[in-house]
Amino acid sequence: MNGAESLIASLVGAGVRVCFTNPGTSEMHFVAALDRNDDMRAVLGLFEGVVTGAADGYGRMTGRPACTLLHLGPGLANGLANLHNARRAFTPIVNIVGDHATYHRHLDAPLTSDIAGFASPVSTWIRSADSVIDVGRLGAQAVQAALEPPGRTATIILPADTAWSDGGIVATAPPTAARRTPAADVVETVASALRSGARCALLLTGNALTEAGLERAGAIAVRTGARLLADTFVPRISRGAGRIEVPRVPYFGEQAVAALEGLQYLILVGAKAPVSFFAYPGKPSELTPEGCAILKLADIAEDGVAALSALAELVGAGKQRAPGQNRQALALPQGALTPETIAQSVAVQLPENAIISNEAATSGFAIPGLTAGAAPHDWLDLMGGAIGQGLPVATGAAVACPDRKVVALQADGSAMYTLQALWTQAREGLDVTTVLFANRKYAILQVELARVGANSGPKAMNMLQLDRPDLDWVSLAKGMGVPGERVTTAAEFNRAFGRGLATPGPYLIEAALG
Amino acid sequence: MNGAESLIASLVGAGVRVCFTNPGTSEMHFVAALDRNDDMRAVLGLFEGVVTGAADGYGRMTGRPACTLLHLGPGLANGLANLHNARRAFTPIVNIVGDHATYHRHLDAPLTSDIAGFASPVSTWIRSADSVIDVGRLGAQAVQAALEPPGRTATIILPADTAWSDGGIVATAPPTAARRTPAADVVETVASALRSGARCALLLTGNALTEAGLERAGAIAVRTGARLLADTFVPRISRGAGRIEVPRVPYFGEQAVAALEGLQYLILVGAKAPVSFFAYPGKPSELTPEGCAILKLADIAEDGVAALSALAELVGAGKQRAPGQNRQALALPQGALTPETIAQSVAVQLPENAIISNEAATSGFAIPGLTAGAAPHDWLDLMGGAIGQGLPVATGAAVACPDRKVVALQADGSAMYTLQALWTQAREGLDVTTVLFANRKYAILQVELARVGANSGPKAMNMLQLDRPDLDWVSLAKGMGVPGERVTTAAEFNRAFGRGLATPGPYLIEAALG
Repeated sequence: MNGAESLIASLVGAGVRVCFTNPGTSEMHFVAALDRNDDMRAVLGLFEGVVTGAADGYGRMTGRPACTLLHLGPGLANGLANLHNARRAFTPIVNIVGDHATYHRHLDAPLTSDIAGFASPVSTWIRSADSVIDVGRLGAQAVQAALEPPGRTATIILPADTAWSDGGIVATAPPTAARRTPAADVVETVASALRSGARCALLLTGNALTEAGLERAGAIAVRTGARLLADTFVPRISRGAGRIEVPRVPYFGEQAVAALEGLQYLILVGAKAPVSFFAYPGKPSELTPEGCAILKLADIAEDGVAALSALAELVGAGKQRAPGQNRQALALPQGALTPETIAQSVAVQLPENAIISNEAATSGFAIPGLTAGAAPHDWLDLMGGAIGQGLPVATGAAVACPDRKVVALQADGSAMYTLQALWTQAREGLDVTTVLFANRKYAILQVELARVGANSGPKAMNMLQLDRPDLDWVSLAKGMGVPGERVTTAAEFNRAFGRGLATPGPYLIEAALG
Repeated sequence: MNGAESLIASLVGAGVRVCFTNPGTSEMHFVAALDRNDDMRAVLGLFEGVVTGAADGYGRMTGRPACTLLHLGPGLANGLANLHNARRAFTPIVNIVGDHATYHRHLDAPLTSDIAGFASPVSTWIRSADSVIDVGRLGAQAVQAALEPPGRTATIILPADTAWSDGGIVATAPPTAARRTPAADVVETVASALRSGARCALLLTGNALTEAGLERAGAIAVRTGARLLADTFVPRISRGAGRIEVPRVPYFGEQAVAALEGLQYLILVGAKAPVSFFAYPGKPSELTPEGCAILKLADIAEDGVAALSALAELVGAGKQRAPGQNRQALALPQGALTPETIAQSVAVQLPENAIISNEAATSGFAIPGLTAGAAPHDWLDLMGGAIGQGLPVATGAAVACPDRKVVALQADGSAMYTLQALWTQAREGLDVTTVLFANRKYAILQVELARVGANSGPKAMNMLQLDRPDLDWVSLAKGMGVPGERVTTAAEFNRAFGRGLATPGPYLIEAALG
C-alpha cells in the first residue's frame, strides 16, 4: 500500500466521503488511488476557488469534512479566498496540498513555493507528511483537527514521494472532542440579567441557529421578553414557516447601532460583540451601545444549544414553546423586475427543505424579510467577505444533499470570481437553480464610495461598473453546459424560476435589473 | 492631499502609469484619487488573477512596474498564483493591498486576515503604510524595490485611514540600482573554457534573451563552436526571422538529459543549472550530465548582455556577426486541425512585431520550431507553472504595447482559471487574438499520470478530462463581449486566424481538437 492509498483509506475510515479537487502532476498517485477506494467520491473543479468553496458548502451541510486535493502552493493559493470564508464559517475541511518529492524541494523548480506560508493565514493545523509511514496517521489526525469545535481547516502537505512510496499504514482517527457546555455560573449570570427586567438581547450564531437552538432561544424570548438577534452573516440558519425567525444585525453600522439602541445587556451565544464590516471616517467601529453590558453565554466552540437549554431551564422557560413563523401567503409578483419582486417570487415558489446559498449582496436586502415565512429551508451566507463563495458553496451543498433543491441567490460581480462552479454543477448533475442578479455594477461599492466620503469622478465609477461590455450570463452558463434564460419582467422571472425548480440539475436565470 | 493621492502622485512620479485593479470598500479613497491624476490609467479586472497576471505581462513588456490595487487579504490571495508566476519571471510589480483602518484591524471584522502572511511567499519587500506621512515615501520606495535587479513584486499594505487622512507627502523615487556586470576574472574563466576546445553550451535566460544579448551569444557560438540553449520557460525572448534562434532545454527530464549529453562545460547566463519540473520515481531531478562542469557567467540579477559582450571580446568574437534565422517559407496548412497545422498557420500569418503569450501546454510543442522563422516577435512563457497566466499576461502586454498585435496561444484547461481576462480585453479594446486549443482534457496530466507510474482507472481519468460537458468557448467569449468562432479544420483555422488578426480588439478562435 502506497502513501496515497493509506491516506485515502484513513480519511474514509474517519468518515470523509468526498474529495473536491483540481490536481496536478505531483498529485497523480493520489488521483490514481481514488480508483482503488469506492467510498471516496471525486469531484473535479476547473478552478481551486470552486474546490475549496464546495468543501465549505459540503461541510456546512453535513457537519463532516470533505477533503480537497490541490496542486502545490499556487493551487492552494487559488483556493485561499474561499478557505478564508470557510475559516469564518468554522467549517471542518481537510485540505490536502500536493508537494514536490521531499528530495526535489531544495532544487527550487518553478512550482516550488512556501506552501505552509500560504496555508498559515487560513489553517491553524498544518502538517507535512514527509515520511510514508506517517501519511495515514496525519490523515486521521487531520480529520480530528478539522472537527475540533468549532471546526476549521486542517492542512496536510503531501510530497509526491511519500504518496508514491510503499509502506503506507492506515490509521484510525482519534476521537473528536465534544463541544463544551458553558459552566453553571456563566449560565446563572446570564439568567440573572434576563430576570432583572433589563432590556436584553441574545445575539446568536453557530449551532444556536439550528432548529433546536432557535426553539430554545425562542422559548427564552417568550418567557423573559429578551430580543433575539443573529449575526449579520451566519454559516447556516434554519428558517421559514414553523421556525423561529430571528432578525439580523444590519450590515451598515449606523443601522446596527439603531437596532441595538437601548439595550442594557447583550448576551453572546456563539457570536462576538458586533463590529462594523469596515471602518468609516468619523463613525464608530464597535457597535455595542454605550452602557450596554456584554455577557457571554457561549463562545463559538461551545455548545450553543446546550447553553440555551440550560438557560431556558433557569429562567423558567424549560417547557415554554415559542410560536413558529407563520406561513406567508404571498402572491406571485407582477410588474417590473426588481430585487423585491424577485425576492417575493423566490419566497412564493421556494420548495420545501431547500438550501439557499446567499451571495446576493445589495440585490438581496429584501430576501430575508420576504422569505421568513416561506417553506422551511436552510440558509448559508457569505462569511468572510471574500466574494466568489456563493456558486461554489451551492455546489458543495448540492453534493452533500442530493435530495434537496439548492437555490443560489447570486450577485453578478461576485459570480464572476468563481463562475467555473457552473461546470461542476453540470458535470455532476447537481440540483442547483441559480438566480443571477445582473445589475451590472459593484453596487455595494457605489454605496460605500459615498459612505466613506470619497470624492469621485468618472474614472472611479468606471472601476465600479460591470458594463461596457455587459456580461451575458446565459452565454456564460451555456459555455459550461448549464441551461438558462434571461428575464426582464417579474412575470418572466416567475415562470423561469418555476422552470428552474422543475428542472433536475443546474439551471441559471439571468435577472436583468434596471 | 490625502494619503491615497500622495501614493498615486509618488508612483506616477516614479514612472508608474497603469493600475490594474479589482478594488473594494477599503480601497475607495485610492479609487477616487485616480480621478485626480490623469497620468495613471485604471484597468478593471473582474478577478484578481487577471489583475496580477496583467501586471506581469505589462512589466515584462515595458521593464517598468504597473501597480495593482487589491482588496485586503482575500483579494491578494486571489492574485497570488500569478504573482508566483511573476516572481519566477522576475517582473517588477508594485502590489498595493488595501487594509482595514489601523484602528479597525484588532476588531477582527470578517475580512481581516494576515495580509503580510499571504504576501510573503511571493514578495520579499513588504511594508505597511500605517501613517499618512509615510505613504508617498513607501510608494516611491516600492518602485525602487520592484526595479531592483532582477525585478520583483514589492507589496504595500495600505490601511483605509492612511489612504483617507490628510497629510500625504509626495515622494521622489530613489535611484534604481543598475544591473552589475560580472567581474573580469569570472568572464576570463568562462572564456578559458570556451577556448579549451571542450564541448560547451551557454544556457541563457533573463536579459540575455533580448536581441542584443542573443546577437552577442550568437557571435560567441559562431566563433567558439559553443552551443546555445535557453531555459525551458523564459520570461521573454526575441524570436523570428533575422534573430538568433536558440533551442530550449526540453520539458521532460529524459529529453533534457539527452539534449545536454556530452557537454563538458555548461555556462550559465542568468539561468540556474537545469532541474526537472517535477520529480519522477527512479529518475534524476538534476539534469546536468555527470562530469559536466557548471560555470556561472552571470546570475539573473546581473547584466547578461554586458557579460556576453565582455565574453565575446575575450574569445575574439567582438566583431563577429552570427547569421540570423532565415524567414521560413511555409504554406498555409490544409487537412485536419491538429496542434501542428495550427502552429504552421500561426507561423505563416503572424504579423510583424507581434507578442505571443504562450500557455498552450501540450498543444504547443510544435509551435517554437515552426515559428522560429516567422515574422519577428516577442514570446512570453508561463513561468512558475501556475496555470491561468496566459490570458492575463496577454491582456497586460496589450495594455503595454497598444501598437502591437498580441497572440495568446492558450490551452483550454489553463484558460478556465482566469477566463475573466477576456472581459478586460473587451472593455479596453485590447488587440489580442486568442487561439484556444480545445482538446477537452488536462493532456499534460494524462501524460504525467503514466510517467509517474501511477496505476489508474476511470475515476482518475475523469479528473483529467474536461468533457461531460464540453466547454463551449465561443459562448464563454460571447458572454464577456469577445467575438469568436469555432473551427474544426485547418482551412477554417487559417481563415479564422486571419479574421482575428484583421479584427481590431479581442477575438477568440476555439480550435476544436480531436
